[in-house]
Amino acid sequence: MKRLAYFFGANEADGDASMREELGGKGANLAEMSRIGLPIPAGFTVPTGVCAYFSAHGGHYPEGLAAAVSSNLRSVEHVMGKSFWESENPLLVSVRSGARVSMPGMMDTVLNIGLNDQTVEGLAEGGNARFAYDCYRRLVQMYGDVVLGLKPEDDTAPDPFESIIVAKKKERGVTRDTELEVEDLKDLVIKFKQLIQSEKGVIFPEDPYDQLWGAIEAVFKSWNSRRAIEYRRINGIPHEWGTAVNVQTMVFGNLGWDSGTGVAFTRNPATGDDVFYGEYLLNSQGEDVVAGIRTPQPINVLQKGDSELKSLEEEMPDVYGQLLEVREKLEQHFKDMQDIEFTIERGRLWVLQTRAGKRTGPAALKIAFDMYEQRLIDKEAVLLRIEPQQLNHILRPAFDSAGKALAEKENRIVARGLNAGPGAATGKVVFSASRVEEVVGSDEGGVILVREETSPEDVGGMSIAEGILTARGGLTSHAALVARQLGKVSVVGCGALNIDYDKKMMTIGEHTVKEGDYISIDGTTGEVILDKVATIKSEIERVLVDKSLPPEESEMFSLYQKVMEWSDTCRRLKVRANADQPDQAEMALAFGCEGIGLCRTEHMFFDKDRIGKVRQMILAASPAERRDALAKIEPLQRADFKEILRVMAGKPVTIRLLDLPLHEFLPKTDEELESTAREIGVSKETILEKSSAMSEVNPMMGNRGCRLGITRPEVYDMQIKAIMEAVCELKLERIDVMPEIMVPMVGDARELSFIRERAQRIAGIVMQENKVHIDYLIGTMIEIPRACVTADEVAKVAEFFSFGTNDLTQLSYGFSRDDAGPVIRRYQELFIMGKNPFASLDQAGVGGLMTLAIEKARDTRPDIKLGICGEHGGEPASIIFCEDAGLDYVSCSAFRVPVARLAAARAVLQKTGVPIGATAE
Amino acid sequence: MKRLAYFFGANEADGDASMREELGGKGANLAEMSRIGLPIPAGFTVPTGVCAYFSAHGGHYPEGLAAAVSSNLRSVEHVMGKSFWESENPLLVSVRSGARVSMPGMMDTVLNIGLNDQTVEGLAEGGNARFAYDCYRRLVQMYGDVVLGLKPEDDTAPDPFESIIVAKKKERGVTRDTELEVEDLKDLVIKFKQLIQSEKGVIFPEDPYDQLWGAIEAVFKSWNSRRAIEYRRINGIPHEWGTAVNVQTMVFGNLGWDSGTGVAFTRNPATGDDVFYGEYLLNSQGEDVVAGIRTPQPINVLQKGDSELKSLEEEMPDVYGQLLEVREKLEQHFKDMQDIEFTIERGRLWVLQTRAGKRTGPAALKIAFDMYEQRLIDKEAVLLRIEPQQLNHILRPAFDSAGKALAEKENRIVARGLNAGPGAATGKVVFSASRVEEVVGSDEGGVILVREETSPEDVGGMSIAEGILTARGGLTSHAALVARQLGKVSVVGCGALNIDYDKKMMTIGEHTVKEGDYISIDGTTGEVILDKVATIKSEIERVLVDKSLPPEESEMFSLYQKVMEWSDTCRRLKVRANADQPDQAEMALAFGCEGIGLCRTEHMFFDKDRIGKVRQMILAASPAERRDALAKIEPLQRADFKEILRVMAGKPVTIRLLDLPLHEFLPKTDEELESTAREIGVSKETILEKSSAMSEVNPMMGNRGCRLGITRPEVYDMQIKAIMEAVCELKLERIDVMPEIMVPMVGDARELSFIRERAQRIAGIVMQENKVHIDYLIGTMIEIPRACVTADEVAKVAEFFSFGTNDLTQLSYGFSRDDAGPVIRRYQELFIMGKNPFASLDQAGVGGLMTLAIEKARDTRPDIKLGICGEHGGEPASIIFCEDAGLDYVSCSAFRVPVARLAAARAVLQKTGVPIGATAE
Repeated sequence: MKRLAYFFGANEADGDASMREELGGKGANLAEMSRIGLPIPAGFTVPTGVCAYFSAHGGHYPEGLAAAVSSNLRSVEHVMGKSFWESENPLLVSVRSGARVSMPGMMDTVLNIGLNDQTVEGLAEGGNARFAYDCYRRLVQMYGDVVLGLKPEDDTAPDPFESIIVAKKKERGVTRDTELEVEDLKDLVIKFKQLIQSEKGVIFPEDPYDQLWGAIEAVFKSWNSRRAIEYRRINGIPHEWGTAVNVQTMVFGNLGWDSGTGVAFTRNPATGDDVFYGEYLLNSQGEDVVAGIRTPQPINVLQKGDSELKSLEEEMPDVYGQLLEVREKLEQHFKDMQDIEFTIERGRLWVLQTRAGKRTGPAALKIAFDMYEQRLIDKEAVLLRIEPQQLNHILRPAFDSAGKALAEKENRIVARGLNAGPGAATGKVVFSASRVEEVVGSDEGGVILVREETSPEDVGGMSIAEGILTARGGLTSHAALVARQLGKVSVVGCGALNIDYDKKMMTIGEHTVKEGDYISIDGTTGEVILDKVATIKSEIERVLVDKSLPPEESEMFSLYQKVMEWSDTCRRLKVRANADQPDQAEMALAFGCEGIGLCRTEHMFFDKDRIGKVRQMILAASPAERRDALAKIEPLQRADFKEILRVMAGKPVTIRLLDLPLHEFLPKTDEELESTAREIGVSKETILEKSSAMSEVNPMMGNRGCRLGITRPEVYDMQIKAIMEAVCELKLERIDVMPEIMVPMVGDARELSFIRERAQRIAGIVMQENKVHIDYLIGTMIEIPRACVTADEVAKVAEFFSFGTNDLTQLSYGFSRDDAGPVIRRYQELFIMGKNPFASLDQAGVGGLMTLAIEKARDTRPDIKLGICGEHGGEPASIIFCEDAGLDYVSCSAFRVPVARLAAARAVLQKTGVPIGATAE
Repeated sequence: MKRLAYFFGANEADGDASMREELGGKGANLAEMSRIGLPIPAGFTVPTGVCAYFSAHGGHYPEGLAAAVSSNLRSVEHVMGKSFWESENPLLVSVRSGARVSMPGMMDTVLNIGLNDQTVEGLAEGGNARFAYDCYRRLVQMYGDVVLGLKPEDDTAPDPFESIIVAKKKERGVTRDTELEVEDLKDLVIKFKQLIQSEKGVIFPEDPYDQLWGAIEAVFKSWNSRRAIEYRRINGIPHEWGTAVNVQTMVFGNLGWDSGTGVAFTRNPATGDDVFYGEYLLNSQGEDVVAGIRTPQPINVLQKGDSELKSLEEEMPDVYGQLLEVREKLEQHFKDMQDIEFTIERGRLWVLQTRAGKRTGPAALKIAFDMYEQRLIDKEAVLLRIEPQQLNHILRPAFDSAGKALAEKENRIVARGLNAGPGAATGKVVFSASRVEEVVGSDEGGVILVREETSPEDVGGMSIAEGILTARGGLTSHAALVARQLGKVSVVGCGALNIDYDKKMMTIGEHTVKEGDYISIDGTTGEVILDKVATIKSEIERVLVDKSLPPEESEMFSLYQKVMEWSDTCRRLKVRANADQPDQAEMALAFGCEGIGLCRTEHMFFDKDRIGKVRQMILAASPAERRDALAKIEPLQRADFKEILRVMAGKPVTIRLLDLPLHEFLPKTDEELESTAREIGVSKETILEKSSAMSEVNPMMGNRGCRLGITRPEVYDMQIKAIMEAVCELKLERIDVMPEIMVPMVGDARELSFIRERAQRIAGIVMQENKVHIDYLIGTMIEIPRACVTADEVAKVAEFFSFGTNDLTQLSYGFSRDDAGPVIRRYQELFIMGKNPFASLDQAGVGGLMTLAIEKARDTRPDIKLGICGEHGGEPASIIFCEDAGLDYVSCSAFRVPVARLAAARAVLQKTGVPIGATAE
């Protein structure tokens, strides 16, 4: 650590925006804002390294920290003209966390530090006794909750301090906090201190320095709180980064009706429109807005619409004018949409924080392109401003209009909230985050999480719910922020909801909704609808796939198209799709795939017109009988291959030979058994016997893939013949086809050799018979660890490798995908595991095997074609790995193709470190 | 290739014994024998490289081969004073295979090449017409069988030529071949030629050169015959080595009663005694002896015993004297026991072949030590002369004397054959090799394979039978040689057997034995016993383990002890044992283990006194209830650990924490269900529900090992506490213990960290409570591929690695051990796989991962302790890998400890290339 504390204030700063790693996002931006002359209350930042030191040294601080804090505090006193311990004009400070990346609401904050029985009197001078004691009771409460840990862990249990307030209000016969008077507040302070002493056996510290140090320690400790760790797990933030601590002069929005506090986005975070957008509350502290306890007022007339709430533009035009200037300065400086917190203290504007604003997918596109038009950023920056996952938002379904119309007609649209996360969602209602996990785990349907308001403890449940609906809070509430980030459909602040957690039900007007009932929410309009509503496709899908929407009628489509075009010029990785059927291939083509990376042939076997013949083949008593049965399947497979190859004319199509164990095709139900027995003329008993003889203890490691292709070579022979004949027929139609035959489950080069030799012989015969020359490749899916270790040998006989990272993950870990779920979840809870390796590629382990395989393969065959076709092929973080590892292509499901195209472009840009101008967050 | 043919003869040679790779064992030794002045018929060797070229170039020969063969043939003609195509004194040659290592009977041979309608007359001159036509009909027959492929593949079908002979004998009213007269033989030649023309559409070639080239090609092709490939698979011989071809002047043992042929060992191959040992037949060709068709005569009086057969020593004392000289010369030169083939042609001795003789385990020890005493070889050579597997022979069981006495009393000893393979075996009778595999696969009991005589096609079945019993053939027959090599119990040449393959039964005197009946054979005495006989332990075991035999009464034990002592001074690898119980540990100690490398704790849970408590633990409704149940198990485990640690005082003991999935402990039968339900007071339904909730699709990759230790930490906590308390109690008794706690199934360093932290905490508490300091290690079993790839991280928290190569093989290949059997067998048949990787370490794949792990681990922790505890730890070829990879120890079952000690010593000697003098084979 270069320094142990960094000063900011009075248009100066020790740090700047480039120092996010040391100062955290908030601290770096406070420094930067101070440097560019924004009205920032002075303060200082204790850097992230101190937190890391604190964690690593059992809660001890590095030497010299105390001195650095004291000296910076003196600078703050000097700049602000206030001081600690002085009754007259006492200095009050806030202590807040600030990590490298934003973790909204995850860590602790203590406000009003500096107040004690003596300074509170100073603050009270000038007729502000009520305010002063309100501040004081807040300090004692926060200190008790945060520093001394009195806040209950269970979010449904009441805060003990709040209980005292509720009792006081009851005693005084009032309903709102603001109705309590000075004496009431003084009494609360006393009662709060008593609570602390009785519960914790300590006395609330009167010394402001003790308060300060208590708060700093609490913030550092909150970095390792359960909820913060869970948040980092979900968001892939390393635990070792640590948080900075920002100590900053308090300014007050609750000094009366000439004061207030608010948050604002420099552009609309839901739509991306280039309009100033925000919310505020008069006579309140900042936490009140963010926590969503009171529904705030709109910042300007434009936003107000037909609401009866007064906008800041109307109530304080001067301050609003200053805010517009701040907005301009910030966007010009940071060149990105900013999310600011501000306070008005007796008519004077203070900016407390700025950071890049969270936004929906559509907003991300709109803002990036608008800024490009406004010459704020260049093309590369546009791509870096759009998270690949955000593209998902614009590809998401909306409600089917007939279904919606029906709901309307049936008066099922029963409430309206704020449209916090776009898209449409239908699902079963549950009222607690923990319940989401149970219902999602046990049931096929989606879940809508309904809460009064959400809190950081709910993040786990939110991340797997279909949608989130809250009764309270604005567009900047926890629920809205997190939902946006997770790409969840969300409606917030829907005051019509009346939730009873105990009875697991809610009423909306005269309607009652119980846990398990279906509701639907429209995150684009804010509507809440009883029962299910069918969903329909996104504009993009309607333009590209259904062609039901003319492209010129969709602005979103034109933005989407630009992102794709620009991505395509940037990226090196090709993007293919996993598609088994011609219609899937067509959809994938519409989404811009450049070939098929995985055409599974299992599905062709399961077709109900064929399963009888397939069963006959499996139950054949001899290879000859089996070949007879296969001869009946061959023309059908040939037709399948022909159609998919035709759709993909001119593009490579990787066809994987049969992978499933044969017994999976055998009849399971008694009915199936009887019909099969009749159809192929064997007894039910014979079928059951064969079936049980084929069953395996660990089917995932059994007679699958090429093992089947070797122990029963007739099956692959048939498939290869079908492919080659399909290709010949298309060639004769002058259609250019590029088949790549992929052999699954290869662990040893000799397996592939065996199949390759037979395939080449069959291809030779088909070519000779048809007098057509076919170019084709034979390669393998790399999904067995041994194939990675012996990749030099395998590459001698493989013209391409496609990493099958699903199975490779399974075998590298020895985790059965079907069984490992509970273990992985427990591991994540214990921080033994970060991201689920089946969702995001395990780069150290599975990635290590891949790297080894790539090196060895290229040693043998420098021009070997390398791709990935596991689930990871469409996951942005995994795509960065694929780019760095030097793969030639990724392959993913059709809907993820756009995501992969953008992710592949960003992987190049992030690697080459294209400068994108100073940006916050 | 330096040359395309290497001449030998007349005390000269182009090659020598060092050129095994090029000339094969037989060719190199023929050259060497010629050089040292033994009476060798002249000839030449076509080197192995030509075979490799032939295989790789679709059956074409390298340029210049024809010229080399012609020119060498001329040298042979010159030296032998005979020539091809000349009727007067025609040159006849044999064409035989000769690979780098001996593959007895595996490849083809053609004799008497050079005979045709013209030269046969020349050979017949001087009153030898019968002999000449017998040679001629043999040539035509062999040419038809071997070169033209008329020999039936199915060994039970008759040779078509033999059928003609049988018909001829019937027609002539005689029973023996030798009773056929010249005209009969002439007629056979004509009929044989007709058969060839009608079956193959070709005319038997009259040109000796055509015959020669046909035979050479047949030998090269026989390298790739099914049986040769199977033999190589079983014996781990690379397919690419190829065979040499030896073309050698024929000498004849069937020129009358002054001629003969025989085989001899320079020492007794069954006991190792330093006596000349062999068998011969007068007036016959060499193949007659080896094929076991006639039971041959003993070579000397000593060997003759009370047999009525005349020995060579008696019949031809001069020739016997020459043979003794040859024996002396060979042993002095090759410094190993030799196996020679010789022929006496009209009283003149010719040596046809020498090679190191196959021997039993006891013989290997005796010969090696005798030669050491005789100053022929040094200590290192002694160790290299004893194959580790041969130690198994001397550790094998014999019959229990009471059982044997009972059998005797009951007159169940019904026949006696030759004692070809020592040891005692009991099993079900089967009459074909293919049936062995079926019965062994489906049944727990062993199998005794009973055949008239065995043939190379039977090797597969022989290798998995308990014992082999044949009706015909001597100690040098195929059955005897192969049984010895495979270390099988074997009795051969038991003429009392009367086998009916069709009825799947045999009679022995008045007794009838059907397939599936039990018999017992004593390979040490040659006895055949009806029904089962209990077996007892080997001398070594009785000395070391039971202490029922005083060491000084067992010569074998003293040899064994020397091998072990000398091995121990040579080897670098430590040898530990896998043992779970104190008695096992004691036995392992007796066999010289230096610690326990794997003490499994599962077995302790299955104990019938504990299983109830274990089930209570599993079915516990809460962690607290589970801890209560575990608290009852803990004292029992502590006692287990204490006993095994006490036995192993002063030596390291690696205790593996629980590895099995918990549901395996749950009751399975209805009876178990009921008693468990009663015992722990829950309903049967609850148990069934829990059990089914715990069942997994792929249990091998499920919630096992450390996953269990993390998801239910109470189990490992209990085990660690039990270990630590056991250690404390022993320490207080002043017993020195060295526990190593091994965590199974670790795939990520964080898993181990989690368990390690808990273990250290528990250890700390136990130490504090007992005021005892304990030194212990915590390490992991490396059995997950990911742990290999991330071994640098794992080694940060592991003080030792023990490679669990059973699971590592399973996951590296993706082969479920429970399911892969049929696939592996099919792969071996197709030569896609060599040795079964579960039996002998797959060095390229699994070994590659191990090497990677070792490098990475040593980077992090240079002094990390490395071992192996999978099945491979006791397998000699795998031990060589472990030595080369730099492991610190191997661990194997108690009985394999001696094998491993010797194998470890040999691995060092083979690596450092200690010169051991010229040895054949």
